[in-house]
Amino acid sequence: MSGNCDIALIGLAVMGQNLVLNMDDHGYKVAVYNRTTEKTHKFINGIAAETKIQGADTLEELVAKLSTPRKVMLLVKAGSPVDSTIDQLLPLLDKGDVIIDGGNSNFTDTERRAKALKSAGIRFLGMGVSGGEEGARTGPSLMPGGDASAWPLVKDIFQTIAAKTDAGEPCCDWVGDNGAGHFVKMVHNGIEYGDMQLICEAYHFMKTGIELDNAQMSEIFTQWDNGKLDSYLIEITADILGYKEDGIYVVDTVLDRAGQKGTGKWTGINALELGIPLTLIGEAVFARCLSAIKEERVAASQIISGPETGKDTLLADEWVTSLGEALYAAKIISYAQGFMLMRAAAEEYDWSLNYGGIAQMWRGGCIIRSAFLDEIKAAFDKLPSLQNLLLDDYFRKEVESTQANWRKVVAKTVELGIPAPAMSSALAFFDGYRTASLPANLLQAQRDYFGAHTYQKVDGDGSYHHTDWTGSGSGISSTTYDA
Amino acid sequence: MSGNCDIALIGLAVMGQNLVLNMDDHGYKVAVYNRTTEKTHKFINGIAAETKIQGADTLEELVAKLSTPRKVMLLVKAGSPVDSTIDQLLPLLDKGDVIIDGGNSNFTDTERRAKALKSAGIRFLGMGVSGGEEGARTGPSLMPGGDASAWPLVKDIFQTIAAKTDAGEPCCDWVGDNGAGHFVKMVHNGIEYGDMQLICEAYHFMKTGIELDNAQMSEIFTQWDNGKLDSYLIEITADILGYKEDGIYVVDTVLDRAGQKGTGKWTGINALELGIPLTLIGEAVFARCLSAIKEERVAASQIISGPETGKDTLLADEWVTSLGEALYAAKIISYAQGFMLMRAAAEEYDWSLNYGGIAQMWRGGCIIRSAFLDEIKAAFDKLPSLQNLLLDDYFRKEVESTQANWRKVVAKTVELGIPAPAMSSALAFFDGYRTASLPANLLQAQRDYFGAHTYQKVDGDGSYHHTDWTGSGSGISSTTYDA
Repeated sequence: MSGNCDIALIGLAVMGQNLVLNMDDHGYKVAVYNRTTEKTHKFINGIAAETKIQGADTLEELVAKLSTPRKVMLLVKAGSPVDSTIDQLLPLLDKGDVIIDGGNSNFTDTERRAKALKSAGIRFLGMGVSGGEEGARTGPSLMPGGDASAWPLVKDIFQTIAAKTDAGEPCCDWVGDNGAGHFVKMVHNGIEYGDMQLICEAYHFMKTGIELDNAQMSEIFTQWDNGKLDSYLIEITADILGYKEDGIYVVDTVLDRAGQKGTGKWTGINALELGIPLTLIGEAVFARCLSAIKEERVAASQIISGPETGKDTLLADEWVTSLGEALYAAKIISYAQGFMLMRAAAEEYDWSLNYGGIAQMWRGGCIIRSAFLDEIKAAFDKLPSLQNLLLDDYFRKEVESTQANWRKVVAKTVELGIPAPAMSSALAFFDGYRTASLPANLLQAQRDYFGAHTYQKVDGDGSYHHTDWTGSGSGISSTTYDA
Repeated sequence: MSGNCDIALIGLAVMGQNLVLNMDDHGYKVAVYNRTTEKTHKFINGIAAETKIQGADTLEELVAKLSTPRKVMLLVKAGSPVDSTIDQLLPLLDKGDVIIDGGNSNFTDTERRAKALKSAGIRFLGMGVSGGEEGARTGPSLMPGGDASAWPLVKDIFQTIAAKTDAGEPCCDWVGDNGAGHFVKMVHNGIEYGDMQLICEAYHFMKTGIELDNAQMSEIFTQWDNGKLDSYLIEITADILGYKEDGIYVVDTVLDRAGQKGTGKWTGINALELGIPLTLIGEAVFARCLSAIKEERVAASQIISGPETGKDTLLADEWVTSLGEALYAAKIISYAQGFMLMRAAAEEYDWSLNYGGIAQMWRGGCIIRSAFLDEIKAAFDKLPSLQNLLLDDYFRKEVESTQANWRKVVAKTVELGIPAPAMSSALAFFDGYRTASLPANLLQAQRDYFGAHTYQKVDGDGSYHHTDWTGSGSGISSTTYDA
């Protein structure tokens, strides 16, 4: 049995509702289903009343409304709800039908599902969706990966509803096999953690170091949004800092205890697994963890003394521009690290990733959209095999020319005791990255000393050597001791 | 069938050999087995020829040599070799017998094995062993956890062969249920990564900032080893820096590409899983990753410019003492973070950990042994429920009194472009920890703005609020969008 709907969507939370309305706007016939039938009815009879969207009370009814090969998109909670929904759908679908998981699934789950569904004859896509409720409604960033044979079947619909760059290109393109789409979405979210943390550090510095008020800070973020830092997160920060209710700045009433739903954490874990120094995002995740222990911080603040400083307020004229450059330089490092991770993942999981295309997908619709991504795309267009963003002429020069102010700001945070873990970690990474000889020679010597782990030589042939540093060791290399 | 040996050991790599020789020194009768029989014969007829150690060519033979209840210790490669060895042993053992895994198993594997073996009636211990080959021979640090009913059966032997503190206390005590022993060993290794990285940063600063030679640096580490930094790793660093072969300092011939076997990575992953800001160890692991991409760093060093500085050599008189204090302060932060992680793990995995006892276990025998651990033990003896080392009077005052020099050194690394990711990350953590109001209010506002994630209020009752920051949102909280 088949109907004439182009696609079905399961899961009518805000994101799902908005994505469906977006599809309807563009002329697609959409069937919808929600586990709680009441929600479906409320949607169909409410905000969707004037649309061609069709509701279904059962999955059987939903599937029957679809033209073949069927396309069923899930926007349900990540984890077991995705598996159980797929299990319920399977008996209702035919070979060649398409299931698209548009939720925030961990890419490892998507890898597993893609492989399992392939053997069941179902084409499975794991698609990252970013942009929040607003983006879903007006044009999200979409990052599809999975079974490449499904892409031609859904390409039109997803590229049509996606955000567009200023040049009119869709912020949606094929990412890669199996879990590649959700992986790139995960890295997107990790970078989002980093961007948000950097903005928070700039805000903290302005508020406590320069002692600016909310209106002044809102104005500065607006100025930054008109320059190289032009981005959605800078723009909304200006809005937030300027927003009052009943004469009170709402941001001042918000508790400084950050929540998280895990995608930043996943990014950090993946970086550790793959051995990629994703330091800025790591610090951003940990900064949220530290913010969460509010009571302990309040208690600590009452007994632990900070630095003795003159407490002179910093001059805005001297510091605001420097701060903007520090933020910008650190942001370049964060993206350089993020692309390092994607490159390592492509090798590890055997994906062929188009890095310029990824920058374009993030260019509009999503939370990290920024003018900056055009430059990243340009760098990869110029040299698709670019090993690191910092080796691209444009980004190298940008960092080189802002580093004096970046160093000045980080040194000042250190002096004043204003925490800037992401900005300072990024700087330490930059300095390590451009250092030919790091002190890891000593570290390898230590490992060889206490664990006979052996070491390679500076001018050696790659072979491993052991030194009896004390004259009393056995000279045998350790095989079980780990460090 | 049973014999008269006190314990069996499987796995005759250097660590296993040395541990067995240690047991024999103390009068225990040990039976040994290695998968490669030749290795057993070579050991028995070689270094063990004058001992009472008995070799076995098969596991049957090995088990038959043991008095009951039998104690069989494994020192085989972590991972599947542990599982397969256990599988081969099980049919040969009786209920109530004890298996001890002394390898570097991931604590999650130990949790799984402890539960599985309990239902098979076998008492299973996962025991962290630290000290390298030297420690194994003369007295290692031993961290046993698992089935508490096995502890009285093996306590004498392990406490006897373990290292002793200056006061004569064994560096071995009961840690906790299931995987607690291997967990504490994992944290030990993470801290070891942190200590090593801090020493490398101090070495890098002395070498490139103060331009000291190896003999001078060796002398300084020796001085530090006679003060508050008194520790095994500082001591061996002095040895390493002073060690020459054929008139050449060997440390200068070692390639600066750090290896790792994964336990630091596990610690970082666990911290991310539990939401504990283990920033210093995280940076230490990432620093090893960065050192590993040697070719890329060399290429980058040739095209990326660092800061423009006067290049004046720093004066040793002005900087060496400050550097030692920076190293010391950062080390306090690292241990504070490590104990935060153990506290969180105890809650998560339902262990009752004795933090003072853990400090004592690390006091001797292991790689991170140091005088410093006496102070940690004292802090927890004074207040077993101590929430954080930084809230202890002694450590608080130590950090407060060294922070001026710590800040001075970190600011100088920033100015000169000498990477110090661990020292600077520790400082950012310290400043965040003692800050009552972090900028996470802005971050929560951003999450509410783009994802309707809601927020709590500063003076609220813990309830969650959503603000329509733009006046156009739906006012519904997001349930699927993650950030």
